[in-house]
This record gives sequence, structure tokens and C-alpha cells, in this order.
Amino acid sequence: MARILIEEGRFGGLPALHACPVNEADSPLPTVIVWHGFTRSKELDSNLAYMLAHAGLRVLMPEADGHGVRFDGDVAGRPLRFWEIVRACIDEMPALRDDLLRRRLVEGGRIAVAGLSMGAFVTLGALARHEWLCAGVSWMGSAYFLDLARTLYPPLGRYDASTADGHESRMVRLCMYDPSTMLEKLAERPLLLWHGVRDEVVPFSESARLHADMVRCGLGDRLELVFDPSASHKLPLAGAQAGVEFLGRVL
Amino acid sequence: MARILIEEGRFGGLPALHACPVNEADSPLPTVIVWHGFTRSKELDSNLAYMLAHAGLRVLMPEADGHGVRFDGDVAGRPLRFWEIVRACIDEMPALRDDLLRRRLVEGGRIAVAGLSMGAFVTLGALARHEWLCAGVSWMGSAYFLDLARTLYPPLGRYDASTADGHESRMVRLCMYDPSTMLEKLAERPLLLWHGVRDEVVPFSESARLHADMVRCGLGDRLELVFDPSASHKLPLAGAQAGVEFLGRVL
Repeated sequence: MARILIEEGRFGGLPALHACPVNEADSPLPTVIVWHGFTRSKELDSNLAYMLAHAGLRVLMPEADGHGVRFDGDVAGRPLRFWEIVRACIDEMPALRDDLLRRRLVEGGRIAVAGLSMGAFVTLGALARHEWLCAGVSWMGSAYFLDLARTLYPPLGRYDASTADGHESRMVRLCMYDPSTMLEKLAERPLLLWHGVRDEVVPFSESARLHADMVRCGLGDRLELVFDPSASHKLPLAGAQAGVEFLGRVL
Repeated sequence: MARILIEEGRFGGLPALHACPVNEADSPLPTVIVWHGFTRSKELDSNLAYMLAHAGLRVLMPEADGHGVRFDGDVAGRPLRFWEIVRACIDEMPALRDDLLRRRLVEGGRIAVAGLSMGAFVTLGALARHEWLCAGVSWMGSAYFLDLARTLYPPLGRYDASTADGHESRMVRLCMYDPSTMLEKLAERPLLLWHGVRDEVVPFSESARLHADMVRCGLGDRLELVFDPSASHKLPLAGAQAGVEFLGRVL
């Protein structure tokens, strides 16, 4: 019967949960960096840490900028920072990797990334930018940052004729991070897209579109799309298990 | 920094997760039995085990009948068994308690119950029937089993003129378990009701009604109601924290 350790720590300067089988706390293991959802925290999404560690993986679950112990209490301002937070998470990943490697916790350099909702945006953005990542799981994510930012947490609160110029100038920093402009990078490693068809927050069409675009470009060989016809923006057991099984298999 | 152990085990004959601070695996601690939600599993809701253990409590998270490793695969039949499963969970609790006490894991006999959604129904039903429970947290639950069973997972699939007789005869076994007929029992111990006002599965009115009924009967002294005006049937961070803080305080 599995015995899992989940401990608080700091990795790459960030507060993070670290999870693994109890007797492998210091052994090199294939490792997954998991990003939690928007307005959530590493603790609230720690079920994923437990489930992935139960599959024999090492899990690092950082606290995203503006969340948990890194939250400044500005509830109204946080949605306007959504895309900035996504970018910050992507940028923080090399420090996480360096710390994991320095501590000799990673088997053969095998590090994957996974996340749900906002964490899935980070996942796709990180796969596009960080070639050292070996695999990814996007639960309810989108690769179309610039398109989606017009309707999902636009940085000025809304996107319309009156805000379009300001919106574009704010989003210009995201251009280099938009994974939909780097599909060939996403195709280089095993990637699972999981999405509920009835998702009311991040439309299912985001994952369907990414899958279609990649397949159309001949980039679908290592891509898997799993969708749940009855799931909303709440990860069900089968969806969590699909991602855990995928990483256990490919990492 | 906290270090938490989550291990698989069997308690009272049931598969369960057991969580606690690593260095207190064998020490008597105030203990919470936590029940997961319908169609979920002990693993999928293990974030609550982590968060409660992080507050210094021992956590036992059993697998409910018909779920996880106890699921027979009958997806279509499970909703019809919803109320039977609630009853089974309530009936299984004395065996869990006996095993916890036998292993000398409980400090001063202090055992609370908590759960979300289906697990919250179990929580309220267990508080009404088991006097040895010291406190409870109901996340998105209902105490009005017989009323709610007409609309939420009726055992014959629907409740209408054609099924009313069969429905009543199936639900008669639940009569002795309906907490709404035993409000004075619920009032004997600290109880937190948490509910999202926009809950689309278990209406917020279920918790509001229970609170109103208890207060009207002079039974509200140890009752707390916390509601989130923007939450749906998905437990947000503040809701999880409210329950954890409550149990850390009263248990």
C-alpha cells in the first residue's frame, strides 16, 4: 500500500509542495511540475500531487504568483493580472528545474509539466518555451492566449472598441509566449489535452481547436485529446486519472 | 514547514486514506473522518486530507460504497443507489471509530466528521445518529433527505405520480436516517454549514433552510453558516479553509 509524503518547501525561491513516495524522498525520480488553477492554491489542488506521487512520480507544486501565500489580498485586481500571472509562472520554471537538478531529485533529467485551468495555460506556454520539458498534461487549457484574452480575464476588464488599443499594448508582452504560434514546439513531446465538453469557463473548443490545428499541420503524432461529454470546468475522477496514467506512461 | 504523510490502509474493513503530520503517525490526535463526493473518490478529494492534516489533525478518508476501488462499474445504476450509499456510509462509521480507538490514534475520543456534497449528506446523517461524534463540517450538503430525494437522484430515476408509491417504499429505509427529523441531535455539537449560493447541484437553500429551522427552534448556539455568494458546486479555497479552521478550533 502506497505511503506518500507531501511537504512544504522552497524550490527555486518559490513556496511549493513537494510530494513523492515516502521512501524515495531523496532518490532521483521522473518529476512533474504541476500548476494549480486561478484563485486556487497549491494546497487546494494537492489531490493531483497525491495522485501523481501515488503513480511513482516526484511532484513539485509551486504556488503561482498572486495566489496562496503569494496573494496580496487584492481580490478585484487579480483577474486583471491573469495573463501576467500565466507569464510569470512560465518564466519561473527554469529556476524550479535548476533547483530540482541541483538537489539530484530528477531521474535522467525527465521533467514534465501539468496543470489545470490557468495551470494548463502555463503548461502549454511552458512546453512552447522550455525545450527541456519532456511531456505535458493540459487539463482544461488553451494555447490561444491572445485570442482568448479578449474574453477571458482581459487585462483592462473588458475588450471592446474603447479598450482595444490599451488591451493590445498590455498583451504585447504575451506575444512571445503564445503557444498557438509555436505548434511545432508543442509537437516535440508527448502531450495530453483533457477537456470537459460542457466547460463553462474555458471552452472545450480551445482544446478541440488546438488538436485540429496540430493534426492538420502533421504535428499530431505525440498528441492525445481526451474529452468528457458531461464534464464542466471541474475535473472528474476519470479526467484526473487520464492525466496521471499518461504521465506514468510517457515520462 | 509541515510534512504530511498520506497512506493507504484499511480501517474498519474499509479501504481508506490516512493522513497526519509525518512525525505523529502513531500519536493520539484529534481525528476527522472525511467523506468524499458522489462519483468522486478518496484520492480525488485528498486535498481535504492534506489540508486538515496540515492543521494538525488526523484524517481518515474512507472510500464510500460504490466508489473508487469499491465501484462495480455500473455507471448508469449508481445514481439510483445514491441514497442507499449515503445510508451505507453512515452505518459504516462505528466500525471506523472502533478501529481508530483500537489503534490508539485518537486523542481523548475526539472524532469529528466532515464531507462535501454526498459526503456532507453523510456528515449530517452521521451527526444525527452517532452521539460519539464531537463536531461536523458540511460542505454543500442537505439534511432534508426525504424531501430532496424527490429531485436529487431519486431511486427510481424520477419522482412523479407513476413512481410515487415505489419511491416512498424505497425511501422508507431512509426515514430513520433523515437528519431533519433530529435537529436537536445536530445541535448538540459544533457544526459548520458551508454552501455556495450559486450551487447548481445541491441548492444553497438546503443549508439556509437547515440554519433557519435550527435557529427558530433555539438550536443554533453551536451552528455556523458560511455562504459564498459567487460559488457554484465546486469548493473554493476560502470554503475549504473555513472548514479546516473550524475543525482546528472546535475539535
